[in-house]
Amino acid sequence: MTASGEFSLIERYFRRPAPSGMLGVGDDCALLSPAQGCELAVSTDMLVEGRHFFPDADPRQLGHKALAVNLSDLAAMGARPLACTLALSLPRVDEAWLQGFSEGFHALAKEAQCPLVGGDTTGGAPGVVLCITVMGQVRRHQALRRDAARVGDDIWVSGTLGAADIALRLAQGRLPADAARLKAALPFLQCPTPRLKLGRYLAGVAHAAIDISDGLLQDLGHILKASQCAADVWLDALPPNPVLQGLPPEIRQDALLAGGDAYELCFTAHTRRREQIEILSRQLDLPLSRVGVVRRGQGLRVLDADGQEIPVTRRGFDHFSDNPDHG
Amino acid sequence: MTASGEFSLIERYFRRPAPSGMLGVGDDCALLSPAQGCELAVSTDMLVEGRHFFPDADPRQLGHKALAVNLSDLAAMGARPLACTLALSLPRVDEAWLQGFSEGFHALAKEAQCPLVGGDTTGGAPGVVLCITVMGQVRRHQALRRDAARVGDDIWVSGTLGAADIALRLAQGRLPADAARLKAALPFLQCPTPRLKLGRYLAGVAHAAIDISDGLLQDLGHILKASQCAADVWLDALPPNPVLQGLPPEIRQDALLAGGDAYELCFTAHTRRREQIEILSRQLDLPLSRVGVVRRGQGLRVLDADGQEIPVTRRGFDHFSDNPDHG
Repeated sequence: MTASGEFSLIERYFRRPAPSGMLGVGDDCALLSPAQGCELAVSTDMLVEGRHFFPDADPRQLGHKALAVNLSDLAAMGARPLACTLALSLPRVDEAWLQGFSEGFHALAKEAQCPLVGGDTTGGAPGVVLCITVMGQVRRHQALRRDAARVGDDIWVSGTLGAADIALRLAQGRLPADAARLKAALPFLQCPTPRLKLGRYLAGVAHAAIDISDGLLQDLGHILKASQCAADVWLDALPPNPVLQGLPPEIRQDALLAGGDAYELCFTAHTRRREQIEILSRQLDLPLSRVGVVRRGQGLRVLDADGQEIPVTRRGFDHFSDNPDHG
Repeated sequence: MTASGEFSLIERYFRRPAPSGMLGVGDDCALLSPAQGCELAVSTDMLVEGRHFFPDADPRQLGHKALAVNLSDLAAMGARPLACTLALSLPRVDEAWLQGFSEGFHALAKEAQCPLVGGDTTGGAPGVVLCITVMGQVRRHQALRRDAARVGDDIWVSGTLGAADIALRLAQGRLPADAARLKAALPFLQCPTPRLKLGRYLAGVAHAAIDISDGLLQDLGHILKASQCAADVWLDALPPNPVLQGLPPEIRQDALLAGGDAYELCFTAHTRRREQIEILSRQLDLPLSRVGVVRRGQGLRVLDADGQEIPVTRRGFDHFSDNPDHG
C-alpha cells in the first residue's frame, strides 16, 4: 500500500456527497443538524466475522444487513434516520469485497435516508470487524422506550417470525437439508427489512417497543424488566413465516419464540389503539398481530389455545454463550 | 457463560446513571438532547489489539486512551462533548481487564463530561477490538473545519511534539534503550490529553483545525488539501517535548514533523488573532506556538532558520502500510 492507502480507500468506496447542511466523511468530525424539538437517538453495533456473519458471506448482502440491524434499533425507538458512521477493520485490501460491501451499504443508506457521514478504516484483526453507529431523531417525549409498557397493554408483533432462524439452522446443517425451504428462508436472514416506517408511525401511538434480534421471548423480556411488568403471550397468535409450514411443532415453536435475527418490532399499546393499529397495518401492507397482554407482576408466560402455560426451554440468543454462531 | 452473560457484563462494568434528560445504556437507542442553535459533531474510531495497542497494554490506560483519541477529534472541531458509545469485542470475559478498562474509560468520560450512553459487547475476534463514537455540539457556523484555512493565516500548534513518537520507538527497540527517557516519554503515548478546552475557545476564533494523530506534516496536509492552500512550516519554531533533548538531530526532526499520537491541535488563524491566542495560551497554561504560514498554491515546505527548504522523507503514519504497529 502507498502512504495514502487508507485515505484513498475511504475516498473511493465510501465517500458520497453529503446532503446539504451536513459535513460528511473527511473531517475530524461529521456535522449534523437535528431538527428543533427532537431528541437524538443513537445506537451502535459491532459485527465480527465468524460470529455474526460467515467468512464467505456475500459482501453486498453483508453491507445491507450490517446497516439494517442498526436501522432496526432506530425503528424500535420510533426515530427517523439522520446519519450513520462506519468503522471497518479489514485483514487485507480486497477491492471486490469493498465494492460489494459499499454498494449494499449505500443502497440501504439511500433508501433509508441515512447518509454515511463518518468512518474509520484500519487493519490488524485476522477477520473483518464492522462497527456501525446510527443516529436518528424523534419528537421529544414520543420515543418508544423499553420502560414504557403499562399493565393492560396489548402486545403486538410486526411481520412474521421464524424464517431467519430456520434459514440459519438449515445453513448450519442443524435441520435436514431442504433446498426449497432454504431458498425461501435465506432472504429473511441475509436481507432483513428494518421497520422504519412502522416505528415512526408508532411514535406517540404505542408505549414500549423493541426490535426482535435475539428472539421474541428474550427481547420482550427486556421490555418487561425495564417496565417492571409481566406478560402472557399466546402461542397460537404468533405470526409464523410461511417457510415454517410442515416443520415439526417443537421446531416451529422454538423458531417463533426464540428465533433471532427477525428484526420485526414487538411493541405494546393501549387497547384503545387497536383500530388505529389495524388501519396502519393495511396502510403499510404489513401484518401487525396482537399476540399477548401486559400484566401486573413479573415473568413471561407462553399460553396455548386453552390458556394453559407451555414450558419453554430456549429463550433466545446470548452473545457470549457457546451457541452456534449468529447469522 | 450464562444466558444473560452479555447483559450482566454491560450492567456491571459500563452502566452509569444517565445524566438528567438522557436515556443511557439499556434501550434500543440512547436519547440525547443537543442544545438549540448547535450542530452535532460526530466521530468514530476503531482500535485493534496488535495494531493500535499492545496485547499487554494496561487496561486502565487503554480505556483512557481509546476515549481520549476520540475526544481529540471533538476538540479539533471546537465541539463540547455530549455523549459517547462503546462497542467492544472481547476474546474472553476477563473481569480484571474489564474492571481496569471501564475505570480508565469512565474516569476520562466523567472529566470530559462525555457520558457513555450506548454500547455493544460481543466476542469472536481473537484479540480485543474497540470502537468508540463520540458526539459533541458546537454553535452553528463556528466548527473548526479542515477546509476553512485561508491564505495568510498563521499556523499554530498546541503543547509540545515528539514525545509519543520517541516513547514508541524506545518501546519497540527502534532506539537504543534509555530507561529514563522512556519513563518520561511513555505518559505522552499512553495517556494523551485531548485539548477540549482549547478547541472550544478556538471555535469562532480560529479558521481550520485538526488533531495531530498521524504526524504534523500529514495532518496539516489534510487541512491544506481540503482548503486548497499551500504552507511553509518553520522547523525551528516547532515546540519539541523535553524528552527529545540530546537525541540526534535527524531523530528529533522526524519526531517533530512525522511523529504520530501527539493529540495536540494544529490550527490556522488570522494574523490579527495573535494577541488573543497568546492570552489564551496563558489562561490555559498551555504552550501555543506559531509554526508557519498558509500560502497560495499547493504543497507543504519545511524551512530551516535561513529560510532554506529541508528535504523530508517520512511524512507520517498510514494505517494500511507495513510500518511497525501504532502505539
